[in-house]
Amino acid sequence: MTDFFAGIPKARFEGKDSANDFAFRHYDPDAVVMGKRLEDHLRFAVAWWHSFAWPGGDPFGGQTFERPWFGDTMELARLKADVAFEMFDILGVPYFCFHDADIRPEGADFAENTARLDAITDYIGTKMAAGGPKLLWGTANLFSHRRFMAGAATNPDPDVFAFAGATIKTCMDATHKLGGENYVLWGGREGYETLLNTDLKRERQQAGRMLQMVVDYKHKIGFGGTILIEPKPQEPTKHQYDYDVATVYGFLKDFGLEGEVKVNIEQGHAILAGHSFEHEIATAAALGIFGSIDMNRNDYQSGWDTDQFPNNVPEVALAYYEILRAGGFTTGGTNFDAKLRRQSLDPADLILAHIGAMDVCAAGLKAAAAMIEDGGLERMRADRYAGWDTDDARALLTRATLEHCEACVREQGINPQPRSGRQEALENWVNRFVG
Amino acid sequence: MTDFFAGIPKARFEGKDSANDFAFRHYDPDAVVMGKRLEDHLRFAVAWWHSFAWPGGDPFGGQTFERPWFGDTMELARLKADVAFEMFDILGVPYFCFHDADIRPEGADFAENTARLDAITDYIGTKMAAGGPKLLWGTANLFSHRRFMAGAATNPDPDVFAFAGATIKTCMDATHKLGGENYVLWGGREGYETLLNTDLKRERQQAGRMLQMVVDYKHKIGFGGTILIEPKPQEPTKHQYDYDVATVYGFLKDFGLEGEVKVNIEQGHAILAGHSFEHEIATAAALGIFGSIDMNRNDYQSGWDTDQFPNNVPEVALAYYEILRAGGFTTGGTNFDAKLRRQSLDPADLILAHIGAMDVCAAGLKAAAAMIEDGGLERMRADRYAGWDTDDARALLTRATLEHCEACVREQGINPQPRSGRQEALENWVNRFVG
Amino acid sequence: MTDFFAGIPKARFEGKDSANDFAFRHYDPDAVVMGKRLEDHLRFAVAWWHSFAWPGGDPFGGQTFERPWFGDTMELARLKADVAFEMFDILGVPYFCFHDADIRPEGADFAENTARLDAITDYIGTKMAAGGPKLLWGTANLFSHRRFMAGAATNPDPDVFAFAGATIKTCMDATHKLGGENYVLWGGREGYETLLNTDLKRERQQAGRMLQMVVDYKHKIGFGGTILIEPKPQEPTKHQYDYDVATVYGFLKDFGLEGEVKVNIEQGHAILAGHSFEHEIATAAALGIFGSIDMNRNDYQSGWDTDQFPNNVPEVALAYYEILRAGGFTTGGTNFDAKLRRQSLDPADLILAHIGAMDVCAAGLKAAAAMIEDGGLERMRADRYAGWDTDDARALLTRATLEHCEACVREQGINPQPRSGRQEALENWVNRFVG
Amino acid sequence: MTDFFAGIPKARFEGKDSANDFAFRHYDPDAVVMGKRLEDHLRFAVAWWHSFAWPGGDPFGGQTFERPWFGDTMELARLKADVAFEMFDILGVPYFCFHDADIRPEGADFAENTARLDAITDYIGTKMAAGGPKLLWGTANLFSHRRFMAGAATNPDPDVFAFAGATIKTCMDATHKLGGENYVLWGGREGYETLLNTDLKRERQQAGRMLQMVVDYKHKIGFGGTILIEPKPQEPTKHQYDYDVATVYGFLKDFGLEGEVKVNIEQGHAILAGHSFEHEIATAAALGIFGSIDMNRNDYQSGWDTDQFPNNVPEVALAYYEILRAGGFTTGGTNFDAKLRRQSLDPADLILAHIGAMDVCAAGLKAAAAMIEDGGLERMRADRYAGWDTDDARALLTRATLEHCEACVREQGINPQPRSGRQEALENWVNRFVG
Repeated sequence: MTDFFAGIPKARFEGKDSANDFAFRHYDPDAVVMGKRLEDHLRFAVAWWHSFAWPGGDPFGGQTFERPWFGDTMELARLKADVAFEMFDILGVPYFCFHDADIRPEGADFAENTARLDAITDYIGTKMAAGGPKLLWGTANLFSHRRFMAGAATNPDPDVFAFAGATIKTCMDATHKLGGENYVLWGGREGYETLLNTDLKRERQQAGRMLQMVVDYKHKIGFGGTILIEPKPQEPTKHQYDYDVATVYGFLKDFGLEGEVKVNIEQGHAILAGHSFEHEIATAAALGIFGSIDMNRNDYQSGWDTDQFPNNVPEVALAYYEILRAGGFTTGGTNFDAKLRRQSLDPADLILAHIGAMDVCAAGLKAAAAMIEDGGLERMRADRYAGWDTDDARALLTRATLEHCEACVREQGINPQPRSGRQEALENWVNRFVG
Repeated sequence: MTDFFAGIPKARFEGKDSANDFAFRHYDPDAVVMGKRLEDHLRFAVAWWHSFAWPGGDPFGGQTFERPWFGDTMELARLKADVAFEMFDILGVPYFCFHDADIRPEGADFAENTARLDAITDYIGTKMAAGGPKLLWGTANLFSHRRFMAGAATNPDPDVFAFAGATIKTCMDATHKLGGENYVLWGGREGYETLLNTDLKRERQQAGRMLQMVVDYKHKIGFGGTILIEPKPQEPTKHQYDYDVATVYGFLKDFGLEGEVKVNIEQGHAILAGHSFEHEIATAAALGIFGSIDMNRNDYQSGWDTDQFPNNVPEVALAYYEILRAGGFTTGGTNFDAKLRRQSLDPADLILAHIGAMDVCAAGLKAAAAMIEDGGLERMRADRYAGWDTDDARALLTRATLEHCEACVREQGINPQPRSGRQEALENWVNRFVG
Repeated sequence: MTDFFAGIPKARFEGKDSANDFAFRHYDPDAVVMGKRLEDHLRFAVAWWHSFAWPGGDPFGGQTFERPWFGDTMELARLKADVAFEMFDILGVPYFCFHDADIRPEGADFAENTARLDAITDYIGTKMAAGGPKLLWGTANLFSHRRFMAGAATNPDPDVFAFAGATIKTCMDATHKLGGENYVLWGGREGYETLLNTDLKRERQQAGRMLQMVVDYKHKIGFGGTILIEPKPQEPTKHQYDYDVATVYGFLKDFGLEGEVKVNIEQGHAILAGHSFEHEIATAAALGIFGSIDMNRNDYQSGWDTDQFPNNVPEVALAYYEILRAGGFTTGGTNFDAKLRRQSLDPADLILAHIGAMDVCAAGLKAAAAMIEDGGLERMRADRYAGWDTDDARALLTRATLEHCEACVREQGINPQPRSGRQEALENWVNRFVG
Repeated sequence: MTDFFAGIPKARFEGKDSANDFAFRHYDPDAVVMGKRLEDHLRFAVAWWHSFAWPGGDPFGGQTFERPWFGDTMELARLKADVAFEMFDILGVPYFCFHDADIRPEGADFAENTARLDAITDYIGTKMAAGGPKLLWGTANLFSHRRFMAGAATNPDPDVFAFAGATIKTCMDATHKLGGENYVLWGGREGYETLLNTDLKRERQQAGRMLQMVVDYKHKIGFGGTILIEPKPQEPTKHQYDYDVATVYGFLKDFGLEGEVKVNIEQGHAILAGHSFEHEIATAAALGIFGSIDMNRNDYQSGWDTDQFPNNVPEVALAYYEILRAGGFTTGGTNFDAKLRRQSLDPADLILAHIGAMDVCAAGLKAAAAMIEDGGLERMRADRYAGWDTDDARALLTRATLEHCEACVREQGINPQPRSGRQEALENWVNRFVG
């Protein structure tokens, strides 16, 4: 046992009226909602990077956090893992996620990076075997090191492409070894800073090829998890290729991979792309590529990725509503890709941030489930589109022509009258459940 | 002759040093650039709606313009057409564009709308036959009338779908009759206000079906023009389905129409979607769906569609650079989907706005052509990606695997060093041509 | 009685579990919170313009609403007033607000406008005397008519300045006659479209003079209400002079009117200016100029004024928390400057939108009051600044110099260590009350 | 001589047609414009921090630049200064600017920081005495070190306030010693992350006190330069107190310092606040507080401070137009608060970025001067407001009342007709000079 979280108790469910900062007020993992335990619905994961690797810097200031494991030795990497598992235990989360660069120090070259990754994942594997949480997903950090400054798969230099491919392989191996349920690709530098030096078409081909290799390798090694792309519109690059869910869908269709790859949707990234979180989830569900979520909020008024812990139950409820409508998570889950504010220096802050976030998600999911079970919204939606349930209407969608449309309008004297969309009434209805 | 533009002379090219407000300083239609007349490069079109139908209102104020043709009779519609052709003549533009609702008064029903459209397009056709400009594109206004408030193709009411289909047919007929070179679909209400009452998947199917019918009808009537979708991310609806070029591409791929339909890209819409204009053009070119442009600028700091006339030569030059790189316009052109500021009340303002915009575009295109002819940028780009020209590198894109990547990295000891992206140097280079 | 709201019952409080769409679940006007009735805390007002005068248009489409009172006769104006008072009665709101242009048809000139305003306010006065709600505030619409297109007080034409001054006088007279508790100035066109034709300094002087005249006239006629400026950063003009609360404060200080004029803060305007609603309220309170609020939400992702009814209790609670911290409303209140979505066509939508909004506000205020009564947040805040409570620290703020600072640092060896800002813990604490 | 810029020649003016990347095409320091040398108009300054201290990191990636002077010894600080002066010489810039933290390594405490600052400014002073450029301004970095994470003047801990005051004193001393012409205060952490833990009123008092002490100390030591506040709306903190020029003005008025302190306006900060650069300059000029500029552009579509070198001549011309209208710089100048893109690794990139930026500014200033000399815009502006030149109109601004306005309107039958604002014509006019 480290003493980092000394004095902080294991978080337990105490119910809505608890005034204990370290207790859950909404999250009872064993509570059954729509026939499933809350833990199995939410599938919470802690993100290694923000919680254990981020020093608290921002573009105008350096490190604020002082963590005993900061440094670049394997010994400190193991200490970091020890603290991580202590936090997982305090929170009772069933999953965690990592990039290679979060868990091992950067080495001098590929060989050293790989050796260190192998060693630390062995260490982590041992801790998991002792009954800790499982791996929701692993991923490769192909954006922090300067070699990736101009992209990984989409780099103008084929050596970087090869280095990236090799690194992804080692991370897929590590994820597979640890029983990861998904493998994520976020293209942090897959984009451009200026069109003036960029060949969009060529870089798209490179990205398509890399994704095909990932899918091929997954099948080759028998990795049963899901490959997930995480969209983001900009930041760090001015324009990122995986802009949003719809863009990723077009890319997957282009390379014939829409049956092989799904999306990991982050609320903050959705917002930066001009969408609501629920829009991106519903779009992915409609297109058959919904996979998993990064649950963190973005300040709507700060134009960069703020990665804050969620704290607005009504918003979160609408996101889970779309997830439940789509059948809930399968291999995916709720990853807190959220970081403490850089002034939140204390170990307790790290715990409290997660407790609050888990509670917000639990309250949101329960509200969403109640809305699903009530069925009111779906009844109103069905009623709105009821006109399409006739044979004539359905025929419009299969064998009609513009001439047929004209004939209908002329013969039947169609002159449509609008019906109320009832937005405010629907919002009021939602407030019955989330308030 | 009406007297609306009384006293305003026909605009002529007088060269860079002219101080005549009503002369072109850059736009000499007959000047030859890269082997083609400037007029044939730019293919300018005036938009009927903003120039002749818009009353100057905004969400906080009503009509400011007083035009003798405002009203809802066919006689006034003909007067409007007379003035329009007088303006086309003053400007010397080779094209114009219209919606049905711009050129005919709204009738009581579909039959009356169609009869009026037929009559006014006959009238316009006569004027065109007398030597006026040609039709760049026609389109149907499926967003202003209250019947379309919840969408046209994507309406919850199949009667609206039929009405929309019938209306598109009449507009395609009119466009075909007038020799239009393209037909445009802008989904002004194809989107949603609230997800709570919306079925994304169903509405997508409806939109796909409508587009298929449009393509079928085009072939049936032998319309040789191009079908164009105009992307826009939001406004009027909170979320519009044709968000941006990449989104439209995914939609076309989904319905197998990527070989049949291209895009009409508007600078203002690109900006609202978080992209630069040149990004959207280059993306469309890379995906093989570039068609035409709406050349108007958007205030970067106003979050709605400001539809201003272009006035920044360096920006416009970058857009034409991408167009020329992609081979220039074929059926497309430069449509001024721009409106006067609502305080610009005078007939002279309407003329001056277009003269200034045409000059900005001409200066931009000439700068773009000079950059193409110099070739410096393309040489620098080719140099940046030169590493991909070896057989080994090319093989990475065809038959490589992640294991192969790892083997290369290990065997060759690949440890890539980044090279400068030279953004500032490239921007300086551009400034040699646009300044 | 008109039959516009036929069949719609008077809204009553039925408690949290009510499934009656037309009942309040949170708003019990007589419930006592922090020693005051809820009605007296919230001081709800309905806005005449959005509810009764707005036709449902947007920049891309015309009227969607069909109201029997639409038109420009005095008879229809009276019908509109009749329906308005019926709605006030159904909702049980204690206040309403209006612009002159909302309640009377536009006349041919100032004299006719004034005569009509007098007549309709007499009519409204009679209805008020019969026991209806009171007037929270009146205001002049100096932005919709084309004469004001380039500003009212800040117009380049002194005739418009005079016309605006005369119109404000008639509206102040009307407000005074009806016992209004405030008079509001929103400078809808006090700003500019382009700096190129604008004299900032001169227009500022004009605005200052107009405000001085308003204050002088208030005192002359013995109007006991508060003069309120409503900030907004842009829209309709590209730049509005009353950008935000801090800007208005600087303007008031410049003209020595900071003791005479306060602000009416709208959530949507705060957001367009890059602020949170609670920021603007807290800023006004800190500067001593907090007056009243327009309670409507703005879509964070639509860059224009969306004027939606509030629906997020946690957000609303934070706004009321700042209001209660500042002592609550005096002459101000909660005006719903919110409009139905244009697809919400039915009379019931108008009622339901207000019921939902009133409930959200009531829930928010009750949560805010509970937070105030608990005192936890204020204790944590006091603790954070406790270092300033010593005499030495206080002295820093009164008589210190930079040399004194240096001496302290050197002599005491000051090398400050940061303390956690505890943001997530505070957000969790808030969620105990708003969830 | 270091060898960092080995092989790079001294930049010279070669005229518009030069194809030499390392030559000026527009900036001839000795060219006389409006009676003054171009160098004396523009007063260029290089910023020490971005050019020499920034490692190329961003929130998603670490250092990309490899500079021989990176490190934390005094020897490396001197090497950095040597390279800086070599760059100043290559560029021929007349000024530079610095923060304390840019030029000296961070020490263990205040005493060590001060000793190091004294030593390195002695070293720099020697280099300046040898004929190098002068100091445009100095400033204290009160935002990067973790001790300032919750603010400097506005910190909840009075020890930080004292430490900040002491540090400012040392930086003012250093600036004075080196003959600096201004002293700048940018409140990088003077703002808040969450209102929940913030006392706005108290922090405002602290900021006011600190500014008073700065002004007092300036007079005490006989520093003849100008004290400048640099506004910014957000980033790094969620809300920064010195939001924009208008906000700073209100703050100065509140503390009676509007005659003592001016503003340093940065284009990127203006944009983040929702303003154009020229708006902020014109506002400051109208309020009498215009001081200096940071000339860097911000990507309009990236929501953070991108600090790019300027490259758009028409935009820059409008900024200099407002500066020339206001009489030009006195103690202020054009500081390039701009950083290389992080992929621009080479020493040549650093030189080329500045050459391009200086050329853009020179072209912009010359265009602005030509517009001033032509006088067309000012004639059109004067004409627009000509109605105010009568005695009656002027009287409205001095002794009128609302009753007087009404009397005028009634007696003279005033019913104002709007006149065209001519925005497009004015924009065309500007394009004659900037194209």
